[in-house]
Amino acid sequence: MTHRKDYYPSRQAPGPQMLERVDPVVHAAEPAAAPVDPALVERYDREGFLMLDGLFEPGEVEVMREELERLRAEADAAQGDELIREPGSEVLRSIFRVHRVSPVFARLASDARLVRLAEHILGDRVYVHQSRLNYKPGFFGKEFYWHSDFETWHVEDGMPRMRALSVSISLLENTPWNGPLMLVPGSQRRYVACVGETPEDHFRQSLRKQEYGVPDPASLARLVDEGGITTATGPAGSTVFFDCNTMHGSNGNITPAPRSNVFIVYNAVSNRVGAPYGPREPRPDFLAERADFTPLNAIEGRIHRPRSAA
Amino acid sequence: MTHRKDYYPSRQAPGPQMLERVDPVVHAAEPAAAPVDPALVERYDREGFLMLDGLFEPGEVEVMREELERLRAEADAAQGDELIREPGSEVLRSIFRVHRVSPVFARLASDARLVRLAEHILGDRVYVHQSRLNYKPGFFGKEFYWHSDFETWHVEDGMPRMRALSVSISLLENTPWNGPLMLVPGSQRRYVACVGETPEDHFRQSLRKQEYGVPDPASLARLVDEGGITTATGPAGSTVFFDCNTMHGSNGNITPAPRSNVFIVYNAVSNRVGAPYGPREPRPDFLAERADFTPLNAIEGRIHRPRSAA
Repeated sequence: MTHRKDYYPSRQAPGPQMLERVDPVVHAAEPAAAPVDPALVERYDREGFLMLDGLFEPGEVEVMREELERLRAEADAAQGDELIREPGSEVLRSIFRVHRVSPVFARLASDARLVRLAEHILGDRVYVHQSRLNYKPGFFGKEFYWHSDFETWHVEDGMPRMRALSVSISLLENTPWNGPLMLVPGSQRRYVACVGETPEDHFRQSLRKQEYGVPDPASLARLVDEGGITTATGPAGSTVFFDCNTMHGSNGNITPAPRSNVFIVYNAVSNRVGAPYGPREPRPDFLAERADFTPLNAIEGRIHRPRSAA
Repeated sequence: MTHRKDYYPSRQAPGPQMLERVDPVVHAAEPAAAPVDPALVERYDREGFLMLDGLFEPGEVEVMREELERLRAEADAAQGDELIREPGSEVLRSIFRVHRVSPVFARLASDARLVRLAEHILGDRVYVHQSRLNYKPGFFGKEFYWHSDFETWHVEDGMPRMRALSVSISLLENTPWNGPLMLVPGSQRRYVACVGETPEDHFRQSLRKQEYGVPDPASLARLVDEGGITTATGPAGSTVFFDCNTMHGSNGNITPAPRSNVFIVYNAVSNRVGAPYGPREPRPDFLAERADFTPLNAIEGRIHRPRSAA
């Protein structure tokens, strides 16, 4: 193994540590060239996320929701590592790699409204590091504990630097009480190095219930003291861009209303993953693209129902 | 056993049923004699609950919070059926019967601001059926699933009719994201009869995680479709009066901010408990007063720190 500097060590020290971020949040060379109001990008820089309503038309959201239901019906009859179920109830929680298996979500991943803003923020062309559908069922949807995505992507997938972001698009209404995404403004500037070691095959458990790579309570309390909590609530179609290191999580959901979101993770092509920074083998391809770093070509226009649909 | 009519049978039929309430929600003979704006009582009648801010002064809330911390510190070193801990973590979740063990909460239970409104709504003098402190710790507070209190009090404690109410006073801020009380407006008019039988010693489990006497998803979805969900958020000291049959619950809490509330349940003296309507022995005294139905004498004035405190 060649020697690489690890700017963001984690799961190595016996106690938690809070490190400063060494990478910019917004990598754009020309702020004025933003595909949205530059003030929104400044806000993203400051808070670590940006909520955009109305980016997609209701008809487009409907097409995505139909596709979600189709994939869910297929998944009910299927087995596969890409299908993650709720602890306890075995109800479907996530489907990964949807941009590879669904023409609708492949089209979404290349959508110019997402790709151009991702390219601007990351200051580079981009590829999809991960994609997934999350279902939070009504009545018994479980919480998703606080985490920085980057911590896992760095330690377990080998992502070198903080130059990636997630886009989450809600496919159903997100209310304050059905377990919406919670984000900690400003947390993207701190790196909470976690305690302990990564067990073998950690991903099988962590996607159901995170127990390693978990930030410690004191660091979380400090981040929330400094930045507070913002909840991503809004109608179906609401879109959130958030930095790879923004601390986020969600509470459980006992309400009857399910919550469904599609996530696309864009990584700068210059930041492609290599060997993991942790001691284990890399996670499988459905969680982290390891072979195809071809930059996406942005597709203009609206998202339509695929022609092949009956 | 003498024959009694059971107006609210539950846990008997093989399938769930939704029955109409046969009792009034507001039993007051003279609506104009309300100790608060009669429009508020009309609202309670319609929605099944009433939120009142500013009923207690900040100094009074502080006295209650100090008492809560004192009782919690005592409880950490103690064992007892009255102390209920979180499933999994063993962190303290509830202390019951606080109006019998704490001078501050005994005083609170007799407070004229609570007793007079309870007497008005219930149209009778009142006694304390149950009291408790609920702690929802930060980071890993678990959800409390939807339930009607009356269903349990009827089946397991032998409360004959719907002529009781709860008062919940928040001792810390309740935000939308730290697992606040959620109530379903209008649900007090429907009785969701639950499926199945009550196991022996059910209370030992049900206080940690409710699995019997649980309303079915279809009935819950119907109640929420009809009435929506209202969240009891607000500063420390916010007070909610809610009917014994109002459907309520709360989500978990992964935020750093804990949530603590004191609950006092008032029952009309004419509605004192008898033999349970279910097949089991009654629950113990700390959960349901079975011996002392003496009506409370309302105490006027503010709540002060007890003189004996150091």
